Amino acid sequence: MMKYKSFDHMDCSLAQTLDVIGERWTLLILRDIFFGVKRFSQFEKSLDIAKNILAVRLNRLVDEGILLKQSSNEGSHPEYKLTDKGLDLQPILLSMTHWGDKHKPNSKGQRLIFVENRTGQPIRTMSVVSKEGKKLNPREVKATLGPGLSDTWPFEPTICQSDF
Amino acid sequence: MMKYKSFDHMDCSLAQTLDVIGERWTLLILRDIFFGVKRFSQFEKSLDIAKNILAVRLNRLVDEGILLKQSSNEGSHPEYKLTDKGLDLQPILLSMTHWGDKHKPNSKGQRLIFVENRTGQPIRTMSVVSKEGKKLNPREVKATLGPGLSDTWPFEPTICQSDF
Repeated sequence: MMKYKSFDHMDCSLAQTLDVIGERWTLLILRDIFFGVKRFSQFEKSLDIAKNILAVRLNRLVDEGILLKQSSNEGSHPEYKLTDKGLDLQPILLSMTHWGDKHKPNSKGQRLIFVENRTGQPIRTMSVVSKEGKKLNPREVKATLGPGLSDTWPFEPTICQSDF
Repeated sequence: MMKYKSFDHMDCSLAQTLDVIGERWTLLILRDIFFGVKRFSQFEKSLDIAKNILAVRLNRLVDEGILLKQSSNEGSHPEYKLTDKGLDLQPILLSMTHWGDKHKPNSKGQRLIFVENRTGQPIRTMSVVSKEGKKLNPREVKATLGPGLSDTWPFEPTICQSDF
């Protein structure tokens, strides 16, 4: 089994998230479950993934409280289900999907269009939004130190302003 | 060198994105560059990452047009810079950061607070937004097939409605 260096020791919300969902395949497993895949054999078929890798990934997601493993009506085949913590991953998946739509398009057009259930209208492209609800471009945003990061922050505070 | 199975053959915007940025470390490298890190030795120090892994990741990001490698004023130390394609990754990084803020918090409070440059006001938590600008929760969204996915889509169309 491939061993990864854990990012769990890093006091960074992004690294903490990557420690949970940053292994390759994990986001594809989550994509499938958002689309209604529920059983081990269905993931295996949809992803063409080795059993042992799939099992480790699913167990990790259950341990993290992202998936719930429950017996199905038919008994022998457990089903996986997103918890609220798992549902909270949707903005990550959709941000990645929209980036791929834009920068790795299918020549025939958009692959999937995500719409609001109630209206059938396409959702907005994932972007940063100001307090007032305005779309912000990347250069209009900066990081400031919160109470959680004391002197552990490795960058100069001014560097957060970034000059990309 | 660890070899990964490529996701490049998958006609899925999420898999395409993961094929580019889904290797562990890559998003931490991108995080650092968003914070102003520019040089190889700075990434090495900030991330405590092996030289060969860092080099492969940086080269890949340059090849993909996400980073630009340019000579610095002082000559010998090239600097890495985000392109517009790279800047477009910001919603992914911030979605992950906000998930970590909520589900893997620091007990002393928020680590970093991202604000609008102009106003200093915190940005909204990354979420799906309707065409009209309303925050949508995960259950209010569904996928519909676009022109790019013909009969290659492996799921039943209705399954996109998802019953999570």
